[in-house]
Amino acid sequence: MSGEIIANEASSAFRKLKTLSEGQRNTALQKIYDGLKSNKEEILKQNEIDLKNAIDSKLSSSLIKRLNLSNPGKFDSMLQGILDVKNLSDPIGKISMRRKLDEELELVRISSPIGVLLIIFESRPEVIANITALAIKSGNCAILKGGKESIETFKILSQIINQILDKETNVPSNSIKLIETRQDVNELLNQDKYIDLVIPRGSNELVRFIKENTKIPVLGHADGICSIYVDDEFDIEKAKKIIIDSKTNYPAGCNAVEQLLINKNISKQTIQDLLQSLENAKISLHVTPELKFSESYKEVEGDSFDKEYLSLDLSVKLVDSLNDAILHINEHSSKHTDCIITENKEKAELFLKSIDSAGIYWNASTRFADGFRYGFGTEVGISTNKIHARGPVGLDGLMSYQYQLRGNGHIVGDYIGGGGKKLFIHEDI
Amino acid sequence: MSGEIIANEASSAFRKLKTLSEGQRNTALQKIYDGLKSNKEEILKQNEIDLKNAIDSKLSSSLIKRLNLSNPGKFDSMLQGILDVKNLSDPIGKISMRRKLDEELELVRISSPIGVLLIIFESRPEVIANITALAIKSGNCAILKGGKESIETFKILSQIINQILDKETNVPSNSIKLIETRQDVNELLNQDKYIDLVIPRGSNELVRFIKENTKIPVLGHADGICSIYVDDEFDIEKAKKIIIDSKTNYPAGCNAVEQLLINKNISKQTIQDLLQSLENAKISLHVTPELKFSESYKEVEGDSFDKEYLSLDLSVKLVDSLNDAILHINEHSSKHTDCIITENKEKAELFLKSIDSAGIYWNASTRFADGFRYGFGTEVGISTNKIHARGPVGLDGLMSYQYQLRGNGHIVGDYIGGGGKKLFIHEDI
Repeated sequence: MSGEIIANEASSAFRKLKTLSEGQRNTALQKIYDGLKSNKEEILKQNEIDLKNAIDSKLSSSLIKRLNLSNPGKFDSMLQGILDVKNLSDPIGKISMRRKLDEELELVRISSPIGVLLIIFESRPEVIANITALAIKSGNCAILKGGKESIETFKILSQIINQILDKETNVPSNSIKLIETRQDVNELLNQDKYIDLVIPRGSNELVRFIKENTKIPVLGHADGICSIYVDDEFDIEKAKKIIIDSKTNYPAGCNAVEQLLINKNISKQTIQDLLQSLENAKISLHVTPELKFSESYKEVEGDSFDKEYLSLDLSVKLVDSLNDAILHINEHSSKHTDCIITENKEKAELFLKSIDSAGIYWNASTRFADGFRYGFGTEVGISTNKIHARGPVGLDGLMSYQYQLRGNGHIVGDYIGGGGKKLFIHEDI
Repeated sequence: MSGEIIANEASSAFRKLKTLSEGQRNTALQKIYDGLKSNKEEILKQNEIDLKNAIDSKLSSSLIKRLNLSNPGKFDSMLQGILDVKNLSDPIGKISMRRKLDEELELVRISSPIGVLLIIFESRPEVIANITALAIKSGNCAILKGGKESIETFKILSQIINQILDKETNVPSNSIKLIETRQDVNELLNQDKYIDLVIPRGSNELVRFIKENTKIPVLGHADGICSIYVDDEFDIEKAKKIIIDSKTNYPAGCNAVEQLLINKNISKQTIQDLLQSLENAKISLHVTPELKFSESYKEVEGDSFDKEYLSLDLSVKLVDSLNDAILHINEHSSKHTDCIITENKEKAELFLKSIDSAGIYWNASTRFADGFRYGFGTEVGISTNKIHARGPVGLDGLMSYQYQLRGNGHIVGDYIGGGGKKLFIHEDI
């Protein structure tokens, strides 16, 4: 099926989905829960095919473990995830403005779904259930492409979901569409007439490729180049804890720190102590020449302050002042999350105000940049865009808004500016 | 100067501008007001060159009138506009979320400027002062390109503004940069590294060209294909008033109606009466064959329901039902503003819920879709995008947000999900 047909069908499904009540959408989620539960055996059978292929292809044991839906509790937790989303409050129809323009002329701004989403995600098979639930809950249609390692599991899951939607619910079955190949993705990236937002959740290369090959808005981040600046008025124990956590808690995370800037007024001995602690925590330091206190420290290279290591490596340099740190970060960071370590509140507030990133932290690990840790319940992704949603994105990143105007025969020609003499009231109610 | 240098300089200026206080930004606006006021003579002299060129080029008298800054009150009202923006409440630093993640770990979501804007606007010379004021007020840098008919006026205005910023304020003079040629615009459209948002305020062709030639997000609308649906339970006097206002109040406006859908259950006589009133109001009707009650009505053509006339022309057709009207509008409208005329509240609410446009109206003229009429004070533009700002956009469309996290040595490794045992509090405060 061509990309245009797939996108057009999803767009048609959206027009229907948009009119459904919260009850109808929630019922669909319940039916999907029931249907997946009663088809557990068949789903696990297909999952075994993926597992066998993964073993034959000699994929890593950690990846194979992630693919396995038979792991204790995994299938049940996938199902529970659907009910958790069902139980969230309805994101549609929330009123963010209500204004009386004139007698019997009332303007309301109300949250509404965006439309058709193209979501590209990794291989964990349970993710398709989670995204399906989020999409239906928020009234959006989703075209889904998962990692190829779980293709048989994705196919059986989407087949069951489509059948249930078709036979047992008011949600059009085209609201959720699985596509299977990279070629399909490429075709869909041209469908800006029908697709409203692309959400790539995968490697940085994938995100960069998508950003470069579509006119559709992309919610995501190509890079996570996060920095920590250590001020001269600082608590060394906090600094050690925060830097080590930011780097080692999950080095492959986009919110892991990649650059450390140290104020040059800190004594050499203290800096040596700090760097030694980092090395003891297995962090591989890339330092500027004046910081090469140990043979084991590597020297920085040309791009050391413009790269995302996604490993235990960390670039380190001295800066002359807080202002220099701010300038460096605004120039080199990917506008994801940056942190200052200082005991001086005034300096901290200047840093918080000056850094142009989605997250700006004072004395806290960059690893907190995460939808679950922010309390969003579920995370759609992390955005380094500066328009629409920014930083960790929860369900509200899938929402837009509309203006509803209810009148009683009102015309602009009666008002000042439109040719008449009436004045607007403009009273928020 | 190359597009990359211009964009890079604006981006550097933004880093400084972002750190300034409300007082510093407001002072800059006051200084600009003072400076333009004391240079009135020189500005009007340059404006006269534009006027002379316009007359030599035989531009229309209405356009020449719009170019003329010597028209009574025009210069003063341009200056007053700067003070009006100065007196708006500060859009920066508004807190939209404050959440205690744990003891001494507090998350705040705070409004912040977007960054560097590329704004392309029409020939009215006073617009440059208005946009400059909006940009500085909101902490954004603006690269400006105005219509070529006012080029000499724009040059003297921006020259004075840049000098004032440079010598008398803390706002970097590169915060406001005038560019002069279409070639400059084309080069800047490639600078997605430095430019965060493009706002084209010009012809639909211009907007379409820009949307097709940049990866930078575009705030605007290429088309304004607005529809009115007349239900069978309707008040004919309201219908006449609303349709005539929607079409004739300002036919070149993007919020003028272009399509009229009439429920086929309305009696032929009533429809004839309605269409006759429209014709009497000088509306040129393009009708489907069954509505050709008069020789003067033109027949619709292939694209009559997919075009923006921007004139007194109006396409008219019958539809079988409210549902058919909704389907037609969601298929053919440009998602700008659409209206239902009915006395039946239930049908109105279904329409309001089902239409996927920025504005959905019940018994009110589509011409109300406007930032001033919505009470936004000033209008940046009207967006038919579905992400970020939608519909008429006020100053808040120039704002983004950032997350600030203030901790005291907190690390993720201490919490559940990060390897530890602590629970988050997640309490809104």
